[in-house]
Amino acid sequence: MLFPEGVAIDGRRGSVEPSTDKYIKRLSDLRGLFRDEAALDRAIAKGDAIAYEVIDYRKSESDLAFGTTIMMPGKVGDEYFMTRGHFHARRECGEAYYTQSGEGLLLLQSRQGEVRTVEMRPGVCAFIPPDWAHRSINTGSGKLVFVWFCATDASHDYGAIREKGMRRLVVERNGKPALVDNPNFA
Amino acid sequence: MLFPEGVAIDGRRGSVEPSTDKYIKRLSDLRGLFRDEAALDRAIAKGDAIAYEVIDYRKSESDLAFGTTIMMPGKVGDEYFMTRGHFHARRECGEAYYTQSGEGLLLLQSRQGEVRTVEMRPGVCAFIPPDWAHRSINTGSGKLVFVWFCATDASHDYGAIREKGMRRLVVERNGKPALVDNPNFA
Repeated sequence: MLFPEGVAIDGRRGSVEPSTDKYIKRLSDLRGLFRDEAALDRAIAKGDAIAYEVIDYRKSESDLAFGTTIMMPGKVGDEYFMTRGHFHARRECGEAYYTQSGEGLLLLQSRQGEVRTVEMRPGVCAFIPPDWAHRSINTGSGKLVFVWFCATDASHDYGAIREKGMRRLVVERNGKPALVDNPNFA
Repeated sequence: MLFPEGVAIDGRRGSVEPSTDKYIKRLSDLRGLFRDEAALDRAIAKGDAIAYEVIDYRKSESDLAFGTTIMMPGKVGDEYFMTRGHFHARRECGEAYYTQSGEGLLLLQSRQGEVRTVEMRPGVCAFIPPDWAHRSINTGSGKLVFVWFCATDASHDYGAIREKGMRRLVVERNGKPALVDNPNFA
């Protein structure tokens, strides 16, 4: 039987206490994601930094799960550190990303290829409708921390984005984030 | 078709922008909830204060909804202002209450009558398992504001709690919240 529980979330550090699972993605886990492969190789050789960490509070007997994503600041070439991006395997499942600290951009793409962005900053809860792929991008100089809420069994479909990429890239131009077309979008 | 959107949540005031719906509960809407009916009558005669307000961001085509609950501070007799308390009509649906400001107590009761509490304070995300009735109680001196996340179609079942009450009451004793047995629990 499941019991209620108070879960302490630190909006600056992104810690979740208690948590049920976590994983870390380093730059070497993100090959194929960034356009500038030489820059990626150099960054991996220089210490293979952590790009982001995901901490789960997920109980299989509950319909709702939540957790945090903690994104480090940085760039590979002119692209900011980003998550892999995914659809949900269960296409009827949306999500909410509630930013706690830092600044970023949420890049979304519908199944039909329409692109939208939502600014990520403290106090903004991004509504991600069902069947929109979503990728988070840390465009700031500090950590980007957000709390996500979605169906426990939404599951991730990374394949479509991994194979085709997303239609737009978020790059630094004159010290600011800018959206440009992805020349490699399939 | 649904589109992504950034929803601005003010953790102090509890505002949600944009929102899709809202409602307000005044003390006169909460008859039957407090033990001291004479104190409730006096409070209603003295201006019928707002006890709490709920603001929704809810799209019927999405599986996930969220919003805020803004609870005013106050007491009726020795009982703190509280929400009505409910199970979800869809018993498989849990919920998360992420406190933004203020302090309170989340009182929960399983279908079998087991009682638990979770402290509500900024940074605590309360996990509410499926089929646990839940009532929020503002035990502080300021507003209690939390963001809730649950299935769009979880729906509320207020009847069971309205008819029987909850097994425990949260009352003020020596200036502090205390849990006591509800003598009227059916």
